[in-house]
Amino acid sequence: MEHLSVTNALKCVLESVKKLDAETVRLEQSLNRVLAEGVRANRDQPPYDVSAMDGYALRSADLATVPATLAVIEDIKAGDMPCKTIQAGQCARIMTGAPVPAGADAVIRVEDTRAAGAGHVQIDHAVRAGNDIRCLGENMRNGEIVLTAGTEITPGVIGILATVKRAHLQVTRRPRVAILSTGNELEDMNEPVDPNKIPNSNSYALMAQVQALGIEPSLLGIARDDPAELAEYLQRGLHFDVLLVSGGSSVGVHDYVRPTIESLGVKMLFWRVSMKPGHPLAFGTTSQTAVFGLPGNPVSSMVCFEEFVAPALRHMMGHTRLYRRTVNARLAHAVKVRPGRTEFIRVTLSRDDAGYIATSTGTQSSGVSLSMARADGLLVVSAASSGLAAGETVTVQLLDGTVFQNDAGFEE
Amino acid sequence: MEHLSVTNALKCVLESVKKLDAETVRLEQSLNRVLAEGVRANRDQPPYDVSAMDGYALRSADLATVPATLAVIEDIKAGDMPCKTIQAGQCARIMTGAPVPAGADAVIRVEDTRAAGAGHVQIDHAVRAGNDIRCLGENMRNGEIVLTAGTEITPGVIGILATVKRAHLQVTRRPRVAILSTGNELEDMNEPVDPNKIPNSNSYALMAQVQALGIEPSLLGIARDDPAELAEYLQRGLHFDVLLVSGGSSVGVHDYVRPTIESLGVKMLFWRVSMKPGHPLAFGTTSQTAVFGLPGNPVSSMVCFEEFVAPALRHMMGHTRLYRRTVNARLAHAVKVRPGRTEFIRVTLSRDDAGYIATSTGTQSSGVSLSMARADGLLVVSAASSGLAAGETVTVQLLDGTVFQNDAGFEE
Repeated sequence: MEHLSVTNALKCVLESVKKLDAETVRLEQSLNRVLAEGVRANRDQPPYDVSAMDGYALRSADLATVPATLAVIEDIKAGDMPCKTIQAGQCARIMTGAPVPAGADAVIRVEDTRAAGAGHVQIDHAVRAGNDIRCLGENMRNGEIVLTAGTEITPGVIGILATVKRAHLQVTRRPRVAILSTGNELEDMNEPVDPNKIPNSNSYALMAQVQALGIEPSLLGIARDDPAELAEYLQRGLHFDVLLVSGGSSVGVHDYVRPTIESLGVKMLFWRVSMKPGHPLAFGTTSQTAVFGLPGNPVSSMVCFEEFVAPALRHMMGHTRLYRRTVNARLAHAVKVRPGRTEFIRVTLSRDDAGYIATSTGTQSSGVSLSMARADGLLVVSAASSGLAAGETVTVQLLDGTVFQNDAGFEE
Repeated sequence: MEHLSVTNALKCVLESVKKLDAETVRLEQSLNRVLAEGVRANRDQPPYDVSAMDGYALRSADLATVPATLAVIEDIKAGDMPCKTIQAGQCARIMTGAPVPAGADAVIRVEDTRAAGAGHVQIDHAVRAGNDIRCLGENMRNGEIVLTAGTEITPGVIGILATVKRAHLQVTRRPRVAILSTGNELEDMNEPVDPNKIPNSNSYALMAQVQALGIEPSLLGIARDDPAELAEYLQRGLHFDVLLVSGGSSVGVHDYVRPTIESLGVKMLFWRVSMKPGHPLAFGTTSQTAVFGLPGNPVSSMVCFEEFVAPALRHMMGHTRLYRRTVNARLAHAVKVRPGRTEFIRVTLSRDDAGYIATSTGTQSSGVSLSMARADGLLVVSAASSGLAAGETVTVQLLDGTVFQNDAGFEE
């Protein structure tokens, strides 16, 4: 099979995995999930015209000449209903969120007024009708769809769901993900240090990448390079929605993974992608499981996860935003690449007034996993490129899932 | 007290809250936490020179003339130790991660070779010494500090922690956060719909904002506008590290919150910030609790959380990146503002080749909570500004904590 481009390989992956079915969750457990139902407003919100400020509800026509002194005829708190109608020369003290009384057509905030003797207030400047009034239904109208199926549940969306009092929601379920590492050279967390072995870091880095998407994966452990043992482990993995197999998918003669996977009924769709790092990436499916054969190299494994597995998992969870957010950045230095493969270069990001500046984390050897730990993003270099110049504008995928930075980034 | 600028208010908050003490967590539960200890390598990694490719380990001098045919004298898998020394005219088949045998100084990948009769391989082009070899200790040297205290635990960092086999870690503990809403007008989730009441959405939106930072808050419920009831609720909140009080901190005469808080021994440090939305933001401390009095308005409450509470919580958890990531964007349309207050305008972001384009979510009425649900970011308008023109470059804080977008954002 030819080497697929990153774009075509991802297209193949996304066409092969399906959005999962829905399940019911409590509002408190719904953050970052995706709505599997449309949600309607169950009331007008606000339920009547309300004040947007603490101040005075009045008739704007009374301020045709200012300063004006008005009689305060009522005191309306949020949660109260007004009892009186505002007549010419009158006003009501009103709190934020309280209903605007009949007769009033504007609110002026308390800071723009001053006391003018018992039961009176002086107002120094005019306001237009509608000033600082939030109209009935401005936020939502009873019965209208306020959130469509497919909406990602952010904190703002949770505010809306609480507004329409949805304690339980239908959301797309999360995939069950299994992680398997393979190879005689691997030493697991609970084994003593053997200087001739390689610690099994991939299972844990992949675990964390899966967790970062809101999914708790199952770690199946390490399968040794023995076809029978490998088949047994793989068989367990095929009970999951997604099986990530780390190592063993390259062209090496000692790699049992590909033939063993195929012998278990997995239809392999590709096993080579024109990218660096990550070249020996394999992908196949059964009727119920998507199987990714990730490179054994820690950096390659993480990059392949970001580029292929994360979009697939997000697609299965019902997300439409599948791709890492990208920013433009200026390159701090020249970058040499060999044309023919899409390269993903680990970079840190700094900022100046003109925007982001990308700097390589140093050696791009895919064995240097510390550089992945230090990276803020992945600079994507097109397969057609034979190198980038210092100062050139490049595209960087943000890796930082929590997306914070170490200064405010704006001038007041 | 004068109105503080956003910068000075945040400075006051960050000077008032302290990094919390450390606790031990399992590696599996450490994602997004901050290391409270330096971590050293417990081995050289790789433990010897290893192959970066599946291919042949050889003497680069043997390729002085190409094509060259070499005798394959051994087959070295990852996890094996080589038995033989490579002499002139010899090579060993080698797998990715396997030790480079004595005598060899380079690896050539299998794709650049071809079989040349029994036990021989033909190589068509020369490689330099060191080609595709990962050197002993390239990733880490035994005993060196590989991760310093204060490092945020990303998936890449978890890979490193697994490499040095740290099943348990010291991390800064998370603050205990309580959320209290106040106001007679509020109707809670479990109450029947009363069209004259306002659903309590703030507690849940704040809950989700706290959850998005990796903290599970305690919801204390709704305190009615009664000083005794409010004092009782507040007293419970003062057992937490952080108490978020929604509503009741404005200048309204019916607001018991500020005086009640002060009567409980909270030293108020400010209660006005020159910002929109969010103007009536209060902040105070006791010896053990930081208390935020957030505006009752849902949008204002969320914006104040992002600008002040999130940085405070991250600071307490040991993070140094406290601020929402910002991007430059071009403004799709003019924006009118009144000078004197820092404005935070809800926007959606789109992209073209030149970068991000920011578009207002529509009405910026702080009562329109749907616009917060739809926003990708907050455009920050300086207090000195009297308006922004279409096309102007502006700063946008990314709100989307999971940071994904709906296309790949790069050309291959």
